[in-house]
Amino acid sequence: MLPVDLPGTVRDALLAPLVDHHCHGVRRDDLGRAQFEVLITEGGAPAPPGTTHFDTPFGAAVRRWCAPLLDLEPHAPPAVYLARRSELGPAEANTRLLRGAGVVAFLVDTAQDTAQDTAQDTDARNTRLHGGDTLTAAEMGRLGGAAADEIVRIERIEQDVAETAQIAVDYLDGVAAELSARAARAVGLKTAIACRAGLGFDPARPSRGAVIAAANRRLADPKQPLADEVLLRHLLWSAVDVARERGLPLQVHAGAVDVPLGPHLADPARLAGFVGALQPLGVPVILLHCYPYHRQAAYLAGLHPHVYVDVGLALPHTAAAAARVMDELLELAPFHKLLFSSHCRGVAESAYLGALYYRHALARALGARLTLGEWSTADAARIAHMIGSGNARRVYRL
Amino acid sequence: MLPVDLPGTVRDALLAPLVDHHCHGVRRDDLGRAQFEVLITEGGAPAPPGTTHFDTPFGAAVRRWCAPLLDLEPHAPPAVYLARRSELGPAEANTRLLRGAGVVAFLVDTAQDTAQDTAQDTDARNTRLHGGDTLTAAEMGRLGGAAADEIVRIERIEQDVAETAQIAVDYLDGVAAELSARAARAVGLKTAIACRAGLGFDPARPSRGAVIAAANRRLADPKQPLADEVLLRHLLWSAVDVARERGLPLQVHAGAVDVPLGPHLADPARLAGFVGALQPLGVPVILLHCYPYHRQAAYLAGLHPHVYVDVGLALPHTAAAAARVMDELLELAPFHKLLFSSHCRGVAESAYLGALYYRHALARALGARLTLGEWSTADAARIAHMIGSGNARRVYRL
Amino acid sequence: MLPVDLPGTVRDALLAPLVDHHCHGVRRDDLGRAQFEVLITEGGAPAPPGTTHFDTPFGAAVRRWCAPLLDLEPHAPPAVYLARRSELGPAEANTRLLRGAGVVAFLVDTAQDTAQDTAQDTDARNTRLHGGDTLTAAEMGRLGGAAADEIVRIERIEQDVAETAQIAVDYLDGVAAELSARAARAVGLKTAIACRAGLGFDPARPSRGAVIAAANRRLADPKQPLADEVLLRHLLWSAVDVARERGLPLQVHAGAVDVPLGPHLADPARLAGFVGALQPLGVPVILLHCYPYHRQAAYLAGLHPHVYVDVGLALPHTAAAAARVMDELLELAPFHKLLFSSHCRGVAESAYLGALYYRHALARALGARLTLGEWSTADAARIAHMIGSGNARRVYRL
Repeated sequence: MLPVDLPGTVRDALLAPLVDHHCHGVRRDDLGRAQFEVLITEGGAPAPPGTTHFDTPFGAAVRRWCAPLLDLEPHAPPAVYLARRSELGPAEANTRLLRGAGVVAFLVDTAQDTAQDTAQDTDARNTRLHGGDTLTAAEMGRLGGAAADEIVRIERIEQDVAETAQIAVDYLDGVAAELSARAARAVGLKTAIACRAGLGFDPARPSRGAVIAAANRRLADPKQPLADEVLLRHLLWSAVDVARERGLPLQVHAGAVDVPLGPHLADPARLAGFVGALQPLGVPVILLHCYPYHRQAAYLAGLHPHVYVDVGLALPHTAAAAARVMDELLELAPFHKLLFSSHCRGVAESAYLGALYYRHALARALGARLTLGEWSTADAARIAHMIGSGNARRVYRL
Repeated sequence: MLPVDLPGTVRDALLAPLVDHHCHGVRRDDLGRAQFEVLITEGGAPAPPGTTHFDTPFGAAVRRWCAPLLDLEPHAPPAVYLARRSELGPAEANTRLLRGAGVVAFLVDTAQDTAQDTAQDTDARNTRLHGGDTLTAAEMGRLGGAAADEIVRIERIEQDVAETAQIAVDYLDGVAAELSARAARAVGLKTAIACRAGLGFDPARPSRGAVIAAANRRLADPKQPLADEVLLRHLLWSAVDVARERGLPLQVHAGAVDVPLGPHLADPARLAGFVGALQPLGVPVILLHCYPYHRQAAYLAGLHPHVYVDVGLALPHTAAAAARVMDELLELAPFHKLLFSSHCRGVAESAYLGALYYRHALARALGARLTLGEWSTADAARIAHMIGSGNARRVYRL
Repeated sequence: MLPVDLPGTVRDALLAPLVDHHCHGVRRDDLGRAQFEVLITEGGAPAPPGTTHFDTPFGAAVRRWCAPLLDLEPHAPPAVYLARRSELGPAEANTRLLRGAGVVAFLVDTAQDTAQDTAQDTDARNTRLHGGDTLTAAEMGRLGGAAADEIVRIERIEQDVAETAQIAVDYLDGVAAELSARAARAVGLKTAIACRAGLGFDPARPSRGAVIAAANRRLADPKQPLADEVLLRHLLWSAVDVARERGLPLQVHAGAVDVPLGPHLADPARLAGFVGALQPLGVPVILLHCYPYHRQAAYLAGLHPHVYVDVGLALPHTAAAAARVMDELLELAPFHKLLFSSHCRGVAESAYLGALYYRHALARALGARLTLGEWSTADAARIAHMIGSGNARRVYRL
């Protein structure tokens, strides 16, 4: 199963169950080809006429690695793959793929689990991706044969509060109260501020006066997704307060994400000021995804004792080229700061491929170090265990 | 000829004639050593005393791969290489090198084909590089045994108009009319705005009032290369209008180019806002070169249905290290969005090495995927064909 | 000793003594585990509870490669390694490690050699790293069996002047005089402006009026490390004057360094304007470290005849992954523009590992090019010699 020969203890450590510390619920409904194609691409638009989103690294990986899990030959044509997937039914396909990932616990960003999400999320791409029926955290666990815990997406909380608060003071109290209430049932908090304002925001906590003024503007049109930087920073610092109080880590989505003015604005390097401000507070910051700025993220993880890093989405989406991405992450990051996530969403294939390419990529990195005599076998096995689950258990207190 | 063993169909697909969708005319005159050295480097300055531009990846590649085409041993010393090149004469050398590239069609940026270019182009580097006698598109085709089509460099058009217009309204009409007239004979348009203003310009179309005001300033000193951002944006949007009307793609030079304030300003990530604004218009945008920001470009190509990408100049200039650059491009880019270009200019060696390193690099990428079982042989052959010529035929309607 | 088989001449060139053109003095005192751990990490903070800075690429490399030099088995546990190091005593350990590096000349940034440094340097991290007893340049040479020369850190000079000058004019005269006096005994100047203000500063020389005004503010609180951009630029241009006068190169620290607002601000691409302004003056500019922006630095080295580049710190800190970093540097950089430095500091292990991973990484790069037939054996040997010592001898006039 692994692409390189490794000593037994190292192989065992790689194949041991993973903690997938950041994923989304996947669709529970039967998916037509057009829907499936849109769900496996970042952009949310159909492929141009005469082309297909299966002609991507991720699409080729679905045909190569997921097809056999559905009893097909490797490299099955897209139409054959999707016909078989429908024939099995989404519950069976999801079960095979989620179990195939070999995960012991899913930590699920449940932003799209609530019913109102479908109707009210005005972000067109999210609606396309997540507007359908997605599995809850509990269902992800049940189908995947794993435990499941919740990660609270703070921008989702804010949206709920904005739509019900009458005056600015209610809004402020509501954000704090709701964050606290939701965090009580969760193992971590997550911000997608990168998609709204980039990561180069003023790292200081905004003044109460500025927040009140911005909240008054916000409440005049609360259906819009939050874009005001003052309120985004207020929300983030409120989340930091809750995280500190409850000993929870804060996930920060970074790297090439849907930032309208450019992915460079989501370079985690831009987060250095905010990360520095958090160091005395002891709140762990987990940089998610980060590609193609994962070297910068690894640098921050080495510089600060409270910073962690993964390349989540990058591994299944770079697919056959994932080994280099993983190896670049390993250039600077301390071994106790690396985490695994599939960043899965939309389709269960992403959970399976996330785990598969993580194992393949790390296997090749470990194999190269063992061949060169750089690491001992015992260290390689120990480090594989740390990255696959040990670090996540420690930082999330699982 | 290829550096890895591949199944016959894949090898054939790699060795099939290429569409070189972005190149420049090369020099037709006999070149002395000083001239040749300046033409093979980016900076346009002679090498420091005691050193030579042959001591670069590109220079080593000339000695390794071009020397045998001129009947010399591989790794011939620079003086021997240039003596033999002169002995054969530039027409014969150009013919051997251009034909050796195995190209079926050259799409040529003809900015420097017009006679006034030599006298009037005040950009010192361009003068050094292109001030001599360069082959026209038709000559590139004739010597290279290939078809040849024209790509219109819009900043060249603007220069011609600025030097003849009397008043601002003439300038505006002239830009539109000249772009339209030149586009009628071309297969695409190209902007070098990255070299003038970077790629972080305001993506909105400038107002007519602002354009008129800027044009009045421009006409007071029209011999200068255009640097005003309002007029550059006006020119770009005028080109978009023409491209949309005629169904032509727009090439955008990106990546490490001669941006006085720094190559990071030409990071294609900064173009995200402009690219987003063009999506509803359906004008294909082709990001040229992009290195070392090709991962960002590949991300945009995956995000947007109208964005295409190549790493043109990077392959012959990274030479022996080209395989990794190509493989990084393949990490995220959809296979139907990748194009080949040599970005050749100055010397025909760049056309030959561009094609050679493209084939070598893709061969290694395909070989690795086949060895790992990631792609099927049929897919590998199909994808090689798409990148080498199929995608270009589709997007340029050749 | 090298990780690949190479022809004898190439191996000999790689194993020949190196010029380490940028390093710091290492500690002469016996180091406890807590001290050692802090010295081998970038951040200067202890590892989080339950973790160790030995679980980093650098830490693993110490156990792998330095342990045998202290008569231990490879991969010795950290406690065993440090016990043996203490047993031998720091003088013996330093001697073995510095001699093991195979260096013929150390060019040492002596900023922390002066006694007042310990008391007065208010930069917390530098105090942690360098507050103890560090070897002088002469001692580095003596222990390492090599010549030793001094590189003048200009920000250190400024601090000394600011603390003694009474009025702004004294300050200006003092900076110029002290730079000139120190440069008379040195082989180069170095700026760490990246750590203070990033590299995107205004490249123009500041006006005398602006400098006087800023100097007056500065003298009101001279104990603070200089952060004012006008004075930093004044200092830098004063250093350029001295460098020009004396024919010395100017080292510029770049890349992921301790820039509070983010490593992207130390991207050498941002230095393009300043580098361009220096081209007519003929002062060599040497970009140090640069990672993860070394491709941008290599591009500048190819563009400008006076720009040189190394990846100093990146090789020992990426350790088992250093080969790719080196190979990325080789993508564009002219062979006559590449230098070796260990960037060693704190512990002599960094000098040894810097040289070791430089040789390993370059060996693999050369081996790959020879296997592919890209370079001749003679060229490979010649280029190894240039990078290892020849280029440094030329640019520093050793």
